[in-house]
Amino acid sequence: MDTTETLATFITSFDGAKIPEAVRAIAVRSLVNWAGCALGGARHPALLNAMTAMRPFVGAPQASVIGRSDRVDALNAALFNGISSHVLDFDDTHMATLVHPSGPVLSALLALAEYQPIDGNTFVEAIVFGIEVECRIALGVCPAHYDIGWHVTGTVGGFGAAAAVGRALKLDAKQMAWALGIAATQAAGLREVFGTMCKSLHPGRAAQSGLSAALMAQSGFTSSLRAIEAPRGFAKVLSTEQHLEKTTEGLGTVWHTLENSFKPYACGLVIHPIIDGCLSLRQQHQFSSDDVKQIDLKVHPLVLELTGKSAPTTGLEGKFSVQHSAAIVTHEGKSQARQYSDAAVQIPAVNTLRSKVQVAIEPGLRVDEAKVTMTLQDGRVLYHHVIHALGSIERPMNDEQVDAKFMDLASNVMTPDQANQALAACRAVGQASDAGVVGRALSVGL
Amino acid sequence: MDTTETLATFITSFDGAKIPEAVRAIAVRSLVNWAGCALGGARHPALLNAMTAMRPFVGAPQASVIGRSDRVDALNAALFNGISSHVLDFDDTHMATLVHPSGPVLSALLALAEYQPIDGNTFVEAIVFGIEVECRIALGVCPAHYDIGWHVTGTVGGFGAAAAVGRALKLDAKQMAWALGIAATQAAGLREVFGTMCKSLHPGRAAQSGLSAALMAQSGFTSSLRAIEAPRGFAKVLSTEQHLEKTTEGLGTVWHTLENSFKPYACGLVIHPIIDGCLSLRQQHQFSSDDVKQIDLKVHPLVLELTGKSAPTTGLEGKFSVQHSAAIVTHEGKSQARQYSDAAVQIPAVNTLRSKVQVAIEPGLRVDEAKVTMTLQDGRVLYHHVIHALGSIERPMNDEQVDAKFMDLASNVMTPDQANQALAACRAVGQASDAGVVGRALSVGL
Repeated sequence: MDTTETLATFITSFDGAKIPEAVRAIAVRSLVNWAGCALGGARHPALLNAMTAMRPFVGAPQASVIGRSDRVDALNAALFNGISSHVLDFDDTHMATLVHPSGPVLSALLALAEYQPIDGNTFVEAIVFGIEVECRIALGVCPAHYDIGWHVTGTVGGFGAAAAVGRALKLDAKQMAWALGIAATQAAGLREVFGTMCKSLHPGRAAQSGLSAALMAQSGFTSSLRAIEAPRGFAKVLSTEQHLEKTTEGLGTVWHTLENSFKPYACGLVIHPIIDGCLSLRQQHQFSSDDVKQIDLKVHPLVLELTGKSAPTTGLEGKFSVQHSAAIVTHEGKSQARQYSDAAVQIPAVNTLRSKVQVAIEPGLRVDEAKVTMTLQDGRVLYHHVIHALGSIERPMNDEQVDAKFMDLASNVMTPDQANQALAACRAVGQASDAGVVGRALSVGL
Repeated sequence: MDTTETLATFITSFDGAKIPEAVRAIAVRSLVNWAGCALGGARHPALLNAMTAMRPFVGAPQASVIGRSDRVDALNAALFNGISSHVLDFDDTHMATLVHPSGPVLSALLALAEYQPIDGNTFVEAIVFGIEVECRIALGVCPAHYDIGWHVTGTVGGFGAAAAVGRALKLDAKQMAWALGIAATQAAGLREVFGTMCKSLHPGRAAQSGLSAALMAQSGFTSSLRAIEAPRGFAKVLSTEQHLEKTTEGLGTVWHTLENSFKPYACGLVIHPIIDGCLSLRQQHQFSSDDVKQIDLKVHPLVLELTGKSAPTTGLEGKFSVQHSAAIVTHEGKSQARQYSDAAVQIPAVNTLRSKVQVAIEPGLRVDEAKVTMTLQDGRVLYHHVIHALGSIERPMNDEQVDAKFMDLASNVMTPDQANQALAACRAVGQASDAGVVGRALSVGL
């Protein structure tokens, strides 16, 4: 069987009871992390501008816009929550491919669940199928796919959303293959728009496209049954390399969902080891940012490629600036959402420090590894080698850390009581008779 | 100035009064042809299935679904009319790039005009900017872009829709550049799905994406200002070759819109010279399809690449079958929508004739040229060399022929009186105080 049909059969036929407990746990942790990020992004101008533009066209109030009182049709909810969950660049990452899996999958699935009740067990399983399929298709085309300029979250996100929704809707295998085909032919998202509001549009559109793909397939809207692997299909057209054996091998026994990782810091993931290093030096040695003469960073090549904006002028650009990140965390001892505001990149002391940051590529370093050397005005030279950044597979955030991150992000729009209730709803979703309760708990009266 | 900003400046600043009359005439002819195709597709299962899937999510009744009584929000109207206008594969074509320009542009623009009144002169000018920009961006990446598997109507359609809507909304140049960027990062559509309902989804989604891109940019949703030409922008990521000088050279003096062409036959355009040839032989010599022993076709390579489905099982597949086309036109003397129904591809006499069709590539033939040889059972050998197919640039359909095509297609859902009124509304749109009148005239009580 070919890739598309193999995946479609897996999504529609695999016995959910055989999903390991550890995989389910990651699905729920993904939900908590995604919901926290969406709450944190609920007042972001990218979301507000998108909502202003779309408001005249929204349909019936079927689903929540997370962190807000608005209720909109499920397709627009998927769009809006996809935007808000990614706009802080704080969401989850499948490191092997750089996919941010939950934005597309959960934004689509929760919108569906509010529109059409889904029991909690089915909901958690659908998350797994969504993330698993999304990461596996990405493995079939990455890294070349990303290297040539595709934002892989935008391109494979629609498959993930379609898989999750298709599983929840109990599509048959042919409908599921069509849904993957409808998602394939809507796959989009260019890295050129990084640093603009369009980056967060990618998971939003992927969620919306994948949700509509599954619904259209259910209504008999046909597509190719070979849209992933065919000569003019997704993998060939959108990548210079194909490894589709990775997409299907070990289906049902190997779970890439286990490799989903969560970010402790609100910036580009490749910057995280540098932040760890700066934080460690700051905590071990007593100095202020004024004492710093120079910061030398040895990094993986992707750091400069993805996050080399040496003179960011907005908070959004700051998230893609290794220089700003090293400077702000050395100055403030934190690297949360507030450290990537428009105001934060304008702080004079931080800008001064930024100009003292030297970044050099060191061949052989992993992407979660970095070496930080701080030279102080008094002549001291401090050094820290970060082997694995916090949030990496080898040093993952645990549930307590992710819950704390949720509470911090939720404080953007919720009282602690509301946030505790919303967190509890996420954590208990597997036992809920109606998973839509999560959406309602994440909705607040802004 | 770079490509994106040059186009944005052109779209927003060029004096509409300087658009030549001949260009305006093509814009109106494009409207008539597009509207006819959408009327013809108004009962097609692709549209019906898409509407069934989307119906629970549509917003306020702002705009018409052409050929139907439904009124939906403007974004869904753009989607639905984009689907119906392309689903018969009978819409317009920019031969140099194989773009079908009007589906994305007019589906977006008319939906806007029904939601937010636009005077007729602005409307006609906006069509021109839409088609012009769409074809020019396609020229910048084709033929390589199409060759590697992109359905260029899907990928550049969003730019065309954004340009038309952006012009009508009077965006400023920066907003227009953002709108092009938002369209760029949503560009999608794979040739793998040809022969399925997803092919017509491409102009529908492009219309919807382009319309929302312009509206989002107007609301301040940012994007790259270099999304077309940047190293990780549209042209580099979606094509192996770039000729972006073609995108901007002669802007305002050379009008590619003049090269928009209209199809006399309801199938893949590359089949048209063959149909002309079969029709000519049938008219010149008296024979029935039973008399035919063999049909030999000499064709351009694209004919077999695009339309080589030798055993179509559905009407949709028949449109991409040169063998079916040669057989049905030889049998019935027509090549309209009815000749590409599911029933038509099952006619025993046509299937027998289909098996007698031999297709060979002849190097040096143009895509609008073909040589048809019919060998009859009585030993006669008939030959016709079609230099330029009807509907080509060199032998275009005129207004009367396009109007007749409109009336034939409109008979799908309208009385002759209704069709005449709708046609008159299209033809007079340039003088209308409110171009939305066209949408209302194309709406009928199905």
